[in-house]
Amino acid sequence: MKILKTIEEVRAQVKAWRKENLTVGLVPTMGYLHEGHQSLILKSVEQNDRTVVSIFVNPMQFGPAEDLESYPRDLQADAELCEKAGADVIFHPEPEEMYRPGFCSYVNMTGLPDALCGLTRPVHFKGVCTVVNKLFHIVTPDRAYFGEKDAQQLAIIRRMVMDLNMDIEIVGCPIVREADGLAKSSRNIYLTKEERQAAVVLSRAVTFGKHKIEEGCRDAKEIVEAMKALIAAEPLADIEYVEMVNMDTMQPIDKVQGTVLCAMAVRFGKARLIDNFICQL
Amino acid sequence: MKILKTIEEVRAQVKAWRKENLTVGLVPTMGYLHEGHQSLILKSVEQNDRTVVSIFVNPMQFGPAEDLESYPRDLQADAELCEKAGADVIFHPEPEEMYRPGFCSYVNMTGLPDALCGLTRPVHFKGVCTVVNKLFHIVTPDRAYFGEKDAQQLAIIRRMVMDLNMDIEIVGCPIVREADGLAKSSRNIYLTKEERQAAVVLSRAVTFGKHKIEEGCRDAKEIVEAMKALIAAEPLADIEYVEMVNMDTMQPIDKVQGTVLCAMAVRFGKARLIDNFICQL
Repeated sequence: MKILKTIEEVRAQVKAWRKENLTVGLVPTMGYLHEGHQSLILKSVEQNDRTVVSIFVNPMQFGPAEDLESYPRDLQADAELCEKAGADVIFHPEPEEMYRPGFCSYVNMTGLPDALCGLTRPVHFKGVCTVVNKLFHIVTPDRAYFGEKDAQQLAIIRRMVMDLNMDIEIVGCPIVREADGLAKSSRNIYLTKEERQAAVVLSRAVTFGKHKIEEGCRDAKEIVEAMKALIAAEPLADIEYVEMVNMDTMQPIDKVQGTVLCAMAVRFGKARLIDNFICQL
Repeated sequence: MKILKTIEEVRAQVKAWRKENLTVGLVPTMGYLHEGHQSLILKSVEQNDRTVVSIFVNPMQFGPAEDLESYPRDLQADAELCEKAGADVIFHPEPEEMYRPGFCSYVNMTGLPDALCGLTRPVHFKGVCTVVNKLFHIVTPDRAYFGEKDAQQLAIIRRMVMDLNMDIEIVGCPIVREADGLAKSSRNIYLTKEERQAAVVLSRAVTFGKHKIEEGCRDAKEIVEAMKALIAAEPLADIEYVEMVNMDTMQPIDKVQGTVLCAMAVRFGKARLIDNFICQL
């Protein structure tokens, strides 16, 4: 496995693969990899001849008051995980490599980024769209892998690829959880021991919400309010939102039908955690 | 030469070419082709194994009060010109093919689109960036050809390609002029006989501005004011702007040095015409 730091090196590598008619998968990450990322890499290795994992803490998708500086980094551990999972290349550029002097272009969309996480993170999805667009041009993958944990991001990336006619298959992969249910996240590292215990309330709310739908409840408001009550009973939990939306448009729904995303963002101390479930009716 | 109307057909055609290791040039146009477009097609045919000309009057780059509806169209004449010039494919999609239901993504940049034409055409370059980005993904050309007449557009496309790491060479081609100097433009069709005669004042201003620099004048304001006076002496001319800017940043300059764009937009009746010269010192 190679660790490449420049766009030119990645391009040259991918072009060499293309000459051999090999397919290429891309797993875009911000590093500090966990079993969630691992599942994406394994999926890419399974579906493509070669797999590139990008590790780049993208400044453009962090707001001024967010955790860009403190975002956890551990390239050595990441490299071990990638190698073990069968990745062929890590692309690990410096910010200066990705954002050259005079950089001023961006990719964005109306609607989808304004809901859910976009309400408190107004520049986030513009940064995500832009960097993913760049990574797609650098790596030119056949397929790219994203976790369903970032469900809004996944919907936005799918929309961008469709709208801008990018010839790339977007593969969404299920949330990977700890033994007690907490969704794996690089940001779980921010949790104190007490917060870590409290945070399990998110996956409990997910299970509870799913169960209500299985039981026949179709009233989005009723489900959301019950989930909120469950989370609010945990004193360390500070709810940012719990919402049910149409998976394609991110618009709030009244009645559970079609493909529905039930998503939440909740703060525990310094950590802002998200969790969700997608249901198809 | 084929005329293709769907994205799928173009993709299939380009993939077939790629299998034969052929290079592909793209000439994005809005149709109603003239010798300016012809020069781009000829350049592409010279530099690439295959050439695609896209003909698409892109609604997204017209403001609500602009000439989207009246923009001249003549596919048959365009097809003849393309065939004669050696193009292999015309891509001529309907707006519904390019903008599917729910379309909401866009590409834009800060700075460059806010100067010159962007001041009176605030949505124009966002529409240009978005449609060119789409066309680049659909055709995946090795090279794409743009006229220097749309100098701000050329600077913006170059910036987009650089910033978003699109692996495409952007080739700018010189302005093609009528015998009396008027820059070729599809919009010249809007001119009455009197306006057509008056419009030659633009190229006269260009020649005059160039001449002043050749004579040693480096004062941008002096040059611009003299050019404005020359144009204003023509009663049918209604000046929107005459400006000298840095070619890379579109920022106004005081002193003529480096690569400078001297650009103007002037109305003659219904027609809004542009002209410019680029000088390197």
